[in-house]
Amino acid sequence: MKTVLYPERSGWEALCKRPGIKKSDLESAVKGIIDGVRKDGDDALLYYSEKYDGVKLDTLKVSVNEINEGVSQVSDGLRKAINIARSNIEKFHQAQLTEESPVETQKGVKCWRKSVPVEKVGLYIPGGSAPLFSTVLMLGIPAKIAGCSEIILCTPPDKNGKINPVILYTASIIGVKNIFKTGGAQAIAAMAYGTASIPAVYKIFGPGNQYVTKAKELIQQDGIPIDMPAGPSEVLIIADNSADPEFVAADLLSQAEHGADSQVVLVTDSKELPGKVNNAVERQLSELPRKDIAAKSLGNSMMIVLKTMDECMDLSNKYAPEHLIINTINSKELASGVMNAGSVFIGSYSCESAGDYASGTNHTLPQMALPGISAECLLKASRKRSHSRSLHRKASEI
Amino acid sequence: MKTVLYPERSGWEALCKRPGIKKSDLESAVKGIIDGVRKDGDDALLYYSEKYDGVKLDTLKVSVNEINEGVSQVSDGLRKAINIARSNIEKFHQAQLTEESPVETQKGVKCWRKSVPVEKVGLYIPGGSAPLFSTVLMLGIPAKIAGCSEIILCTPPDKNGKINPVILYTASIIGVKNIFKTGGAQAIAAMAYGTASIPAVYKIFGPGNQYVTKAKELIQQDGIPIDMPAGPSEVLIIADNSADPEFVAADLLSQAEHGADSQVVLVTDSKELPGKVNNAVERQLSELPRKDIAAKSLGNSMMIVLKTMDECMDLSNKYAPEHLIINTINSKELASGVMNAGSVFIGSYSCESAGDYASGTNHTLPQMALPGISAECLLKASRKRSHSRSLHRKASEI
Repeated sequence: MKTVLYPERSGWEALCKRPGIKKSDLESAVKGIIDGVRKDGDDALLYYSEKYDGVKLDTLKVSVNEINEGVSQVSDGLRKAINIARSNIEKFHQAQLTEESPVETQKGVKCWRKSVPVEKVGLYIPGGSAPLFSTVLMLGIPAKIAGCSEIILCTPPDKNGKINPVILYTASIIGVKNIFKTGGAQAIAAMAYGTASIPAVYKIFGPGNQYVTKAKELIQQDGIPIDMPAGPSEVLIIADNSADPEFVAADLLSQAEHGADSQVVLVTDSKELPGKVNNAVERQLSELPRKDIAAKSLGNSMMIVLKTMDECMDLSNKYAPEHLIINTINSKELASGVMNAGSVFIGSYSCESAGDYASGTNHTLPQMALPGISAECLLKASRKRSHSRSLHRKASEI
Repeated sequence: MKTVLYPERSGWEALCKRPGIKKSDLESAVKGIIDGVRKDGDDALLYYSEKYDGVKLDTLKVSVNEINEGVSQVSDGLRKAINIARSNIEKFHQAQLTEESPVETQKGVKCWRKSVPVEKVGLYIPGGSAPLFSTVLMLGIPAKIAGCSEIILCTPPDKNGKINPVILYTASIIGVKNIFKTGGAQAIAAMAYGTASIPAVYKIFGPGNQYVTKAKELIQQDGIPIDMPAGPSEVLIIADNSADPEFVAADLLSQAEHGADSQVVLVTDSKELPGKVNNAVERQLSELPRKDIAAKSLGNSMMIVLKTMDECMDLSNKYAPEHLIINTINSKELASGVMNAGSVFIGSYSCESAGDYASGTNHTLPQMALPGISAECLLKASRKRSHSRSLHRKASEI
């Protein structure tokens, strides 16, 4: 990883620029897919599944038998880990169900806000190199707690026309039963406009590749609400000399392996830390199953040395990371200065992987942390890093 | 207004379709304006002001002298009304400043959400036929309460290069000092990318015409957050035989006068009410200063008679109105069935105009009520309708 020593403030803006993403012109291709689904419904979905997923399907809906078969294939160890994650996520989100008392703004005038569940929601779960069963928890549990009466889940099948068993297990334990074998832009179009098999929903949630994101943007312009368009994932770590370089390296790598377009950044006041972290990154990288992806992402990444911790926080606020890890001696105090970040992890045992899977906070944040988005914090995680890292591995290995 | 008697449920979908909006292809024009501002900064803003506002400006920033001059021109009566509105809006929004307690999801793992103010915000206030000083309150007060440290306000100048004095008065009482004479797509571009005079902000809020909305959509695609794209405004009223036809007519007209593209809908279980309301609408319309606009809007509008109140609520939930007025004998009970609506006004004295100006709730909702958006309710407003109507008139007369 590239190290930048004591950059001038005038150069921070350039440092905070994300690696250029080739905005390939997907619009006409994705428009074509959406139009196809609106015109030909299920036939279009079956056609695209053959074209993009490489499988000729008979039906789109996952049958009860298929769900049962998938559920039976999940190991006890993974079931246990998923159940712990589920319990924590439920606790955290249940606490968000609050009711506001009316405010009497003047005599006889009572005003209040009331949250009402979206009746029909569509959840998109990517397939591909890492089936995101954790995202089933992150989207499905809040939908259940909110009281959404109809929950649809779309995810692409593999070449044998199967859905990953862990996705089926996770959906089944939270009570999501309407699962459809369709992915990409065509899945988004199906949930937006409905087909004979797939009911139209009122709002669509979930991450996805460039095609999925473009499809979500296009249906949003047509008046169907979405969560937010997703971009590449990223982490920024603020660390000082008290941080264990092995922990910092593991945290950088756990994000780098998300995708070749991810960016990971270390900001520190220690001139020694970058060298130690670099060594640890190289050693740990060689053991990673997704080392090719992580290595590419590290090419977009950097370690920045600044003079003080306050400067480190200023730079982080300017960068506005999706995930921020604060691994310093005074992490709690430093965290009070966070102005722009998505999910914040406070303390040397609070790693992003914990939030990605099991601490209870939600990982379906805006991929690019927008100013003013609620920061979610995790404090004093006493569980050992190794635990969350093993969970993380699970995701890559399935 | 057209009356539809006992439509079949199968026909509801078509009834709930909004009047077709000509989506004129503004994109290339608006892109040109944005590019112009990014390239030429203030010079471009001055050029567009001459072109679109018909005035040759020397400077964009409103001076302290101009603010003081504007403030001095506002009548005592209007000041008093604005100050009441301000106090109510402050009370309602202050109550939203809450802090969540950490949730210990498992031993040692503490998670919480934290709201952090957006540091730099840009507020857009339309000029034109009805200068929206109320929107200065609706956007500026929450920004102040949230603790946004930099608040920029852009609004177009009139042909004499002046800003409406009531906008200046309202901005000054809530402490918004950075006011710039620029409107339309160019104002959005200036706040998004910054010019020599106008600082770039992190998020842009506020209503506007098609050019403003398109500019907001385009800068959002470029990664600068906005509130939501605005569409035509609308109201749906659920009323029964207990409702005063004069009140229903006034409520329909107060929304119809917003714009020729507004839609107003009455849904009732009374076969007699539509005729009485139609008579009242015709009589009241003739007295309205904005009767030409309101008459056009009434052409897009309808009164629907259904068999039961439950059916009326079902249809309203299907329509998902931006504003919903429930003017029935059991309005509070009926309101518990609201699933899809923006701002809800409960009871025969709760009119939309109250929420538009002075009750304390916010009128800068999504213009198209999206499913699941927090419903804001107003209950048992004891103030007389005449009061809120006179405030409403004020907006039209200035």
